[in-house]
Amino acid sequence: MPFAFRVAARDGRARTGHFDTPHGTVATPAFMPVGTRASVKGVRSDELVALGTQMVLANTYHLALRPGSALVHELGGLHRFMGWSGPLLTDSGGYQIFSLSALTQIDEDGATLRSVVDGARLRFTPESVMQIERELGADVIMALDHCPPVPEARAAVEDASGRTHRWLERCVRAWQAAGGVQGGQALFGIVQGGAFDDLRARSVEAVTSHDLPGYAIGGVSVGEDRVAMRRAVEAAAPLLPADKPRYLMGVGTPLDLFEAVRCGVDLFDCVTPTRHGRNHQAFTWEGRLNLRNARHERDPRPLEEGCDCPACRLVSRAYLRHLCQAGEMLAAVLLTQHNLRFFHRCMEAMRAAIERGELDSLRERIDRAQSRGLASSEPA
Amino acid sequence: MPFAFRVAARDGRARTGHFDTPHGTVATPAFMPVGTRASVKGVRSDELVALGTQMVLANTYHLALRPGSALVHELGGLHRFMGWSGPLLTDSGGYQIFSLSALTQIDEDGATLRSVVDGARLRFTPESVMQIERELGADVIMALDHCPPVPEARAAVEDASGRTHRWLERCVRAWQAAGGVQGGQALFGIVQGGAFDDLRARSVEAVTSHDLPGYAIGGVSVGEDRVAMRRAVEAAAPLLPADKPRYLMGVGTPLDLFEAVRCGVDLFDCVTPTRHGRNHQAFTWEGRLNLRNARHERDPRPLEEGCDCPACRLVSRAYLRHLCQAGEMLAAVLLTQHNLRFFHRCMEAMRAAIERGELDSLRERIDRAQSRGLASSEPA
Repeated sequence: MPFAFRVAARDGRARTGHFDTPHGTVATPAFMPVGTRASVKGVRSDELVALGTQMVLANTYHLALRPGSALVHELGGLHRFMGWSGPLLTDSGGYQIFSLSALTQIDEDGATLRSVVDGARLRFTPESVMQIERELGADVIMALDHCPPVPEARAAVEDASGRTHRWLERCVRAWQAAGGVQGGQALFGIVQGGAFDDLRARSVEAVTSHDLPGYAIGGVSVGEDRVAMRRAVEAAAPLLPADKPRYLMGVGTPLDLFEAVRCGVDLFDCVTPTRHGRNHQAFTWEGRLNLRNARHERDPRPLEEGCDCPACRLVSRAYLRHLCQAGEMLAAVLLTQHNLRFFHRCMEAMRAAIERGELDSLRERIDRAQSRGLASSEPA
Repeated sequence: MPFAFRVAARDGRARTGHFDTPHGTVATPAFMPVGTRASVKGVRSDELVALGTQMVLANTYHLALRPGSALVHELGGLHRFMGWSGPLLTDSGGYQIFSLSALTQIDEDGATLRSVVDGARLRFTPESVMQIERELGADVIMALDHCPPVPEARAAVEDASGRTHRWLERCVRAWQAAGGVQGGQALFGIVQGGAFDDLRARSVEAVTSHDLPGYAIGGVSVGEDRVAMRRAVEAAAPLLPADKPRYLMGVGTPLDLFEAVRCGVDLFDCVTPTRHGRNHQAFTWEGRLNLRNARHERDPRPLEEGCDCPACRLVSRAYLRHLCQAGEMLAAVLLTQHNLRFFHRCMEAMRAAIERGELDSLRERIDRAQSRGLASSEPA
């Protein structure tokens, strides 16, 4: 089988595991950097490997617009196109149906979106999305889902969940027609259900009625507060099959990852480390640093003692602050690399703690990592 | 002695050599990437090493403004500050006296400039520049020169040359008071003389009346045409002492470097490879490529077969074109790295050709490298 998932150790509901794909095995729980347009912003693919990245996410909607999935296919698929030989996942465009909702019309058959590149109309159906994702050629492909814009509006959430389930059936048929897992791609279904425990449970039931290589929790991190987000994960994750990887989409901060790992989630993606890096914020075990802050001006220390990222090996906080002040591109590059390394180190720490049966002992440390930094005077 | 220059091979007036500094030996002729604000834009210091960079230039004027030379000194000097452990050169701010001439007032004692950061008045004298460069702590420090704005205006050129020579005397005194080469820094004097052969010769005489560890040709690449620039190099370079490194400031394209090497120049710096990279231009032995051009859209080839830079090892022209079109930061990063590697490969080819006594056979190849690319339809 080209795909397999084996649980290695458990600690409460949390688990470590190994997810085999045609492009390598992912040690879980794992964090996937976001390479929206087939590029993790500012970081080369060989540097991702050095930073501890095991699997990368790319974006179906954006790549369908530019350069187009047919072109990527002609050039040998997304792995070769972006020079990344490890496991790769493409989302389905479902999130963009939500995030670009002012430009979107949804009907039973699919969604009509506007191109952010040139304003052209774009039609996404379950079948067309499976075709696009097949041409892109990632290891894991996500089903097209309907992510409700307001996770607290019950009628809208029910409507979106029902459509997500019907679209999933069509995705599964298209995927199976292309050979299923034997075609080299693992289809993951997406659970919806907003902020309602019963709708989450019903969505898990509908989605897991298909025997798929993995399942995802969607419709989170869409504007709801942190409590609602965690409740949705707690409602859905434990109900998902224990022998399949569970992927929480678009989440989040280190503590969000930790809480979800405690619920048994295995895979994550988020723009947090890369976007914060471009905004001159660095994650450390002692809190988040704003490198524009004057208190770093004369600080000869690395961002974090013991970190093996290029920034921490090479330069000081004072230098990084200088790059930020001077508007040097290298600031974003170095801080992005540090943050990615930090997120991967968080996951490594969680995997090690689960193996020792001591995951809960990490909580305080993880919580501190996303606080506002060492000094209370630190602006966000 | 902390500094020494040994000629290894000759081919006509061209030569290879080794320039020893306290931070390592430079095989010449060599190209120095420009790290204006203590950062070669988008490239980490460890990546510079991997690209074949032997020595880096940083900018005294910009670093004096921000973060300030005292801060750099407090943090252990420029090498430690920017994480670059190899040889380092700082210019003197003389070029900014020229390039910011609308904001500059020159008198016999020095120059008053405006800060590009905050508009503050800044006073540069030979003594203050030596002090700033001592605090920055580069291996090679440049004397403060007066670069005439119009190299064809004889009276202005004579005036600027004379002032450059008088300022050099003061620089030499300040440098010797700090220990001369035993202080760990090699002072290079700068020849002026504009577009006039006799003024160039007189300037060489005045500058080389000081026994310095190296000499530079300045006042070129300041708006004059290529013929005038080459003539100025031909007028000055052969007159400089054969046993000292000769540095041509701010030049240029591959063919400019080749022509200057033929005149016996050993060291170069220019923003050409880095700036062109940010503008989506790639140098290859077959000509310069504009990666925004549609003809690269489906091209699976690397920028250049046989190039060992990260871009050529990892991805295709089609991918790089996609990054350019999508406005991805990684485009500038990868193209900058390729261009730096290309410039270093040009210098490697010149060194090897000199050793074989075949430098002239490289001319056609070098000339093609800066042409407009393979297709005549290629826009600049």
